[in-house]
Amino acid sequence: MTEFDPTVHPHRRFNPLTNEYVLVSPHRTKRPWLGQTEAPQLSDLPKYDETCYLCPGNTRSGGQKNPVYTHVHTFDNDFAAILPAPSPPTPSSPHPLLTTEPVHGGCDVLIYHPRHDLTLARLSVGDIKRIVDEWIRIYHKRGSQEGIKYVQIFENKGSIMGCSNPHPHGQVWALSEIPTIPSIEIKSFEQFSQSHPPVSQAPKGPKGHPCLLCEYAHVEIHVPLQEGRVVMKNEHWVALVPWWATWPFEVLLLPYHRHIPAISDLTAEEKITFAEALSKVTIKYDNIFSCSFAYSMGMHQRPIPSLERHRSDLEVSDVAHLHLHFTPPLLRSANIRKFLVGFELMAEAQRDLTAEQAAERLRKCAEVHYLDRN
Amino acid sequence: MTEFDPTVHPHRRFNPLTNEYVLVSPHRTKRPWLGQTEAPQLSDLPKYDETCYLCPGNTRSGGQKNPVYTHVHTFDNDFAAILPAPSPPTPSSPHPLLTTEPVHGGCDVLIYHPRHDLTLARLSVGDIKRIVDEWIRIYHKRGSQEGIKYVQIFENKGSIMGCSNPHPHGQVWALSEIPTIPSIEIKSFEQFSQSHPPVSQAPKGPKGHPCLLCEYAHVEIHVPLQEGRVVMKNEHWVALVPWWATWPFEVLLLPYHRHIPAISDLTAEEKITFAEALSKVTIKYDNIFSCSFAYSMGMHQRPIPSLERHRSDLEVSDVAHLHLHFTPPLLRSANIRKFLVGFELMAEAQRDLTAEQAAERLRKCAEVHYLDRN
Ligand SMILES: O=P(O)(O)O[C@H]1O[C@H](CO)[C@@H](O)[C@H](O)[C@H]1O
Ligand SMILES: O=P(O)(O)O[C@H]1O[C@H](CO)[C@@H](O)[C@H](O)[C@H]1O
Repeated sequence: MTEFDPTVHPHRRFNPLTNEYVLVSPHRTKRPWLGQTEAPQLSDLPKYDETCYLCPGNTRSGGQKNPVYTHVHTFDNDFAAILPAPSPPTPSSPHPLLTTEPVHGGCDVLIYHPRHDLTLARLSVGDIKRIVDEWIRIYHKRGSQEGIKYVQIFENKGSIMGCSNPHPHGQVWALSEIPTIPSIEIKSFEQFSQSHPPVSQAPKGPKGHPCLLCEYAHVEIHVPLQEGRVVMKNEHWVALVPWWATWPFEVLLLPYHRHIPAISDLTAEEKITFAEALSKVTIKYDNIFSCSFAYSMGMHQRPIPSLERHRSDLEVSDVAHLHLHFTPPLLRSANIRKFLVGFELMAEAQRDLTAEQAAERLRKCAEVHYLDRN
Repeated sequence: MTEFDPTVHPHRRFNPLTNEYVLVSPHRTKRPWLGQTEAPQLSDLPKYDETCYLCPGNTRSGGQKNPVYTHVHTFDNDFAAILPAPSPPTPSSPHPLLTTEPVHGGCDVLIYHPRHDLTLARLSVGDIKRIVDEWIRIYHKRGSQEGIKYVQIFENKGSIMGCSNPHPHGQVWALSEIPTIPSIEIKSFEQFSQSHPPVSQAPKGPKGHPCLLCEYAHVEIHVPLQEGRVVMKNEHWVALVPWWATWPFEVLLLPYHRHIPAISDLTAEEKITFAEALSKVTIKYDNIFSCSFAYSMGMHQRPIPSLERHRSDLEVSDVAHLHLHFTPPLLRSANIRKFLVGFELMAEAQRDLTAEQAAERLRKCAEVHYLDRN
């Protein structure tokens, strides 16, 4: 029998954060594509667009006027999916299978920059650092509101990711419950902290217990670069295509040198290297297919420690390790995407090219943006 | 304080099949949409297309020639994501966080009908019954192959669901492992069978234990139609928008009169009423926006009982209750979809209109296809 070759033979990989598998079918990259192609992602936008409701000085659909902001600017989402407390009491359930739970919180829109035509990939590290500071400010502001348990920072970029406006912006939804996915991840962090991984030099979590992502980053950093999944690394941060990646060019960005539960725990230096890492990852993304690369980005971290809870609970939530997921849909070119449909929706995540192939491709991409070269 | 109104106030609902929550934000339907619109889903196709690799008598990309089939026709997927046994042994893992598991199996493509321009919604019940019979044949054929544990029947319909060819067809992927989502559901069935729901007249699962979906269907059928989530019901089958639906017009189709673990357990009559229900659901779908309505469909059922396993295991897998999920993306019109991105990908499923609103809309849709009216 032939020897196993991960770039040829279908296999499954396990995602220890979500306890799900991904089916890897690398030979499928040879499949011809006659299906839907995507409209090109715009990269020749004006610096200012008078019809854009996010540009400085313009009026939003609710009638409010944006200030003439000069860097980041945050406002309350005009169509918030979660509303402030108090929410009316939910009715008692007619059957245990039909339950309604209350939720309250708030939704912020964070405009990254006044320029309509820029994205993270084309902002200076200094401007990205201002976004990092603003995320921290919102994490504190929302986290100190009554009953808030989780602050979900994320970005939808590109019309194929449902983003309705190319003006660079992200969102923050704060909730009175820990949402499904972060709460699954936190259980995994808790479980791992009680496990006995092989002895390693990886940083440890609270009380010297192992930390799932500190351990994982440590392992990845020590795989020889050519064989591995690391895309980019600086003093504090590493970006890699995780072993269990689902999306074609999925990236996990995280600090690896010490255990850091939340963005509010970053030192001044770690914030700067974070901004640098964000810049490099997004530049490499745009360079893969020389287009403005669409993605969803989400930051996972410690839930908001409740003041009423005991100190031991506080330590439990400290098992989380700060990390960002980037899930971009493009697969083969600026207009051919991977669809996560049918089998993927109904049975199991499935990918075509391997995580290692995607990482190699990203590693080789220049760290200067294709539009900024001359 | 105002009273709770599910069509106004954000709330969360629990999905007992997957143990996940969905955030319901009904007031968001008022949000203007300036984002991506979808190309219209074709409905004026030729009856035969000489460039289509699924039409009778045509040559596929691998060089094989389709027979001049007259009803359903099944062939091995030319770009199978899973390959037949034996798969080469996977290497031992360098670290518990980096594991590779072998998988083998096979992928079938099931052409529903020779006519290039038809879909389930426009086939006769007799023709749909032939598809049901073919699903059963494949479930048996694949299920009797060495080591196969699960037979995943599904369909991607519409280019916005990644379907590369409008010729009516579905797929079947058979695997040597139970995929992530069915395996989560089976755990839920097992747990529920040990629970003590309110006493009801619902059919029971193996050994008289409660069955999660028999109980759920029973509850839904007894909610007054106007307030409820039932879309269509016949002698054996009910289609409903589940309490915990994520996709705008998501539908769960299942038998409700007795516990049925797998498609292979259907009686002759149940197969006919199944074909009738499939016809009605897909006709209603097309009638919502007078277009060929895109969706992914997936059938969940009992894993393949292994001959080597004990009789008690066999009973365990019998806790599953046959059901079909339909997950269509369209939200507001034939070309405005719901994007499950950002918050949904990173935190928790989120929907705009309520399950009850979607069910009412579907209930009111005619049961005659808009193209077949005169
Ligand atoms: O097999 P097809 O129709 O070529 O491909 C389609 O269905 C598959 C199974 O759901 C998906 O993995 C692909 O992304 C999708 O494009
Ligand atoms: O809030 P936006 O940008 O209008 O909307 C976008 O992001 C939301 C949060 O991920 C999604 O629920 C919407 O489907 C998407 O279109």
